[in-house]
Amino acid sequence: MIRAVYPGSFDPVTNGHLDIILRAARVFDRLSVVVMSNQSKSTLFSVEERIALLQEVTRDIPNVVVTHHGGLLVHFMQSEKAQIIIKGLRAVSDFEYEFQMALMNRTLDDGVETLFMMTNNQYSYLSSSLVKEVARFGGSVAELVQPVVAAELRAKFLAATPSPDFT
Amino acid sequence: MIRAVYPGSFDPVTNGHLDIILRAARVFDRLSVVVMSNQSKSTLFSVEERIALLQEVTRDIPNVVVTHHGGLLVHFMQSEKAQIIIKGLRAVSDFEYEFQMALMNRTLDDGVETLFMMTNNQYSYLSSSLVKEVARFGGSVAELVQPVVAAELRAKFLAATPSPDFT
Amino acid sequence: MIRAVYPGSFDPVTNGHLDIILRAARVFDRLSVVVMSNQSKSTLFSVEERIALLQEVTRDIPNVVVTHHGGLLVHFMQSEKAQIIIKGLRAVSDFEYEFQMALMNRTLDDGVETLFMMTNNQYSYLSSSLVKEVARFGGSVAELVQPVVAAELRAKFLAATPSPDFT
Amino acid sequence: MIRAVYPGSFDPVTNGHLDIILRAARVFDRLSVVVMSNQSKSTLFSVEERIALLQEVTRDIPNVVVTHHGGLLVHFMQSEKAQIIIKGLRAVSDFEYEFQMALMNRTLDDGVETLFMMTNNQYSYLSSSLVKEVARFGGSVAELVQPVVAAELRAKFLAATPSPDFT
Amino acid sequence: MIRAVYPGSFDPVTNGHLDIILRAARVFDRLSVVVMSNQSKSTLFSVEERIALLQEVTRDIPNVVVTHHGGLLVHFMQSEKAQIIIKGLRAVSDFEYEFQMALMNRTLDDGVETLFMMTNNQYSYLSSSLVKEVARFGGSVAELVQPVVAAELRAKFLAATPSPDFT
Amino acid sequence: MIRAVYPGSFDPVTNGHLDIILRAARVFDRLSVVVMSNQSKSTLFSVEERIALLQEVTRDIPNVVVTHHGGLLVHFMQSEKAQIIIKGLRAVSDFEYEFQMALMNRTLDDGVETLFMMTNNQYSYLSSSLVKEVARFGGSVAELVQPVVAAELRAKFLAATPSPDFT
Repeated sequence: MIRAVYPGSFDPVTNGHLDIILRAARVFDRLSVVVMSNQSKSTLFSVEERIALLQEVTRDIPNVVVTHHGGLLVHFMQSEKAQIIIKGLRAVSDFEYEFQMALMNRTLDDGVETLFMMTNNQYSYLSSSLVKEVARFGGSVAELVQPVVAAELRAKFLAATPSPDFT
Repeated sequence: MIRAVYPGSFDPVTNGHLDIILRAARVFDRLSVVVMSNQSKSTLFSVEERIALLQEVTRDIPNVVVTHHGGLLVHFMQSEKAQIIIKGLRAVSDFEYEFQMALMNRTLDDGVETLFMMTNNQYSYLSSSLVKEVARFGGSVAELVQPVVAAELRAKFLAATPSPDFT
Repeated sequence: MIRAVYPGSFDPVTNGHLDIILRAARVFDRLSVVVMSNQSKSTLFSVEERIALLQEVTRDIPNVVVTHHGGLLVHFMQSEKAQIIIKGLRAVSDFEYEFQMALMNRTLDDGVETLFMMTNNQYSYLSSSLVKEVARFGGSVAELVQPVVAAELRAKFLAATPSPDFT
Repeated sequence: MIRAVYPGSFDPVTNGHLDIILRAARVFDRLSVVVMSNQSKSTLFSVEERIALLQEVTRDIPNVVVTHHGGLLVHFMQSEKAQIIIKGLRAVSDFEYEFQMALMNRTLDDGVETLFMMTNNQYSYLSSSLVKEVARFGGSVAELVQPVVAAELRAKFLAATPSPDFT
Repeated sequence: MIRAVYPGSFDPVTNGHLDIILRAARVFDRLSVVVMSNQSKSTLFSVEERIALLQEVTRDIPNVVVTHHGGLLVHFMQSEKAQIIIKGLRAVSDFEYEFQMALMNRTLDDGVETLFMMTNNQYSYLSSSLVKEVARFGGSVAELVQPVVAAELRAKFLAATPSPDFT
Repeated sequence: MIRAVYPGSFDPVTNGHLDIILRAARVFDRLSVVVMSNQSKSTLFSVEERIALLQEVTRDIPNVVVTHHGGLLVHFMQSEKAQIIIKGLRAVSDFEYEFQMALMNRTLDDGVETLFMMTNNQYSYLSSSLVKEVARFGGSVAELVQPVVAAELRAKFLAATPSPDFT
């Protein structure tokens, strides 16, 4: 049984992430989606909220589990005896950063292997940051995230109505 | 009559921006330069100051108007019934980010088209950030920005004389 | 009236090219699609065949004309008194080559301006070379080119049935 | 049982290829290394020679088989009912080309998934072309390929002693 | 006597930096390693600490001196009558940023020349930021930095034990 | 005395090459410009012609010598007891290829160091191939190469008047 781990911030999960999850769940026996909780990065959604949204959008995929981890990914891999990290690639800038991370992880534990999958090119421009930017200014995110995520984004930004910065 | 929109932070306008404005004003009937006021990004110059500097450096180009917008660019395009966004490209890193933005804008409104122009290669290294860095430490920005912008930069940084951080 | 010129080899025209033609025809008053005949590059389709295919796939777009040119593009621009070159960008490697060409053209004639448009990301992987490779080995090109182009590709490769190179 | 396919020209197999083979064989149940015979590309080694060298350098890895295919890779995947293509990535230029190929393959058969693995950074500069260039001019390839490959390269280039092109 | 200047943040010095220092010290008569103190960037180590670590790891290289500078690098070059800046390149993203800086420096003083050296590909993934990230979460940095740097990193992060952000 | 080696095809030498030669001759004690004669690549100018043009355009730079070499560059470096290779970088695509070559050379001889210099951004688009393309179709190369090179290009292409490939 080959198991893969898909780590990320998922703040929040986008249709691009979901596309990678669906593809990885199709080729591996089991897929763990891991919300990385990095204290130094401020997020819109709490770790609990990000887990809940991931569980909601993946609930029809039987071989996917959602969890979280604080600290180094290799420690998670070791504690779970998992060998394969899945990362989605959209563009060249992704590639460079992900390569750095993967080489660092390989240095920390040579038994861990990172496999890169291409995001569907329909989502090649998509990132959680852009989704939040669009939602913050009242644009429609219907094609970018699942309905449950869109609803949560609306709730977050209604709570914090921005005042215009130039009048 | 074909009208184009050139959005940006312009904090402050550089000779690279001005080069794009001149080229775009030459090929389109009318060009709107739009200062995007993004609350989440702290700027050196206020929106009013950025508009004033742009008006000053473009006052001899008859078919250019300067304005501002807070929020999503596609909303501006729709309210102005404008179809063409102009963006300057200097390097590969520009390219990736600008592509993401342009694809996102196309998703939000398929009637909006982004056209990329090359900055004169004489200015291919130039960015508002680098200009501010040079001015902050007392370097000459005479070849990088117009005289009126250089004067305003000097005024900003004289007001905030830095104390040495290591003695 | 603003007129743009879209040059290329078009050997043969793909759905990616057609996407750029449709978008450019929507924002400019008139679009000339120019088959560049470069003697040093061997092509599958003759210049006449490439023109015929382009005329066929663009015949419902009233403001598009198809023509050809041998030699330097700037000479064509000058003889036609056209100012705007349109190029499609798909990826970083495109970007570098197209930038080189555009800067060279600007050196040869500063009055000529190159504007880059993004190919629909659905076609970001598509090139005439890949289309020919797929067709040569009997793969389906139905999603990659228009039906008339697919038929011509089949005809070309049926005429030259490859013998297996390893048995 | 999850099976992966690693296609390439392997003209000849380098230590970079072997690194990918070892890593892929460790994470998948079975790995097919496929010599792609592309008629339009002239090679130094024949398909039979390339297969023989691959079999020699992988003979101690029990779950690896070496085979060949002429034509489209998706046809091979379909006939073998294999779902996973493995590709090694070294650098940005690899990335762009491999992305194009992977997106094209996905268009031809959405059931086929390409997974990218990083070559050990010790081999990030290595390519079959560079190896042949070094061997052709009598440089040592001892760190670049396995001893059996080095011996075959020497044999090839001794047979064709180059005469100096400038005296 | 040809003298080169190697500037950086060195927060802290990694084995990648040390590799560049050793290579540059081998080809130039004298090498000044300059800790740039940039007030706007918060660092883990103070300027004094960064200088001390650099002096410690370079103490066996006779033609290297360590110093610091606040402000623009070209001012340092002019005051020291130095002509050559050395920068290490690891990847494409480095390349773009370093090119921008080098072109800006050339604009500020055309007598200053930036020479780029390749980091050993064994360290191509290595950055001070990644080293700090690994050390912060208790990973081993033994292969990434010299022993004295590893000890200082442990001391820094023990002092600031992070509390888990999700329980 | 520090000596540097600047290798290339120089088919023919452009203003971009000359810019690198001038800059390198200013920072090193002696510069050898080496015409690499690679049998597998067909060139417009013979090795003798390329040497003669380089000697002509560098005759006022006292510390420059022009020579040639067939085979591996590291063999030249070893026979001349030279340690420093100079390469010009214009763009990302240069960077990748040059990095590969430099890492390969470092593997073949770790005592050889490649230093990269930036081409003046005025010439960032310039290549010998583009120059030949422009000259072949009768465009002006006056801003791209020295007068003596322009004259030789005219002579080459007048001798081989192309017949139009489409009438």
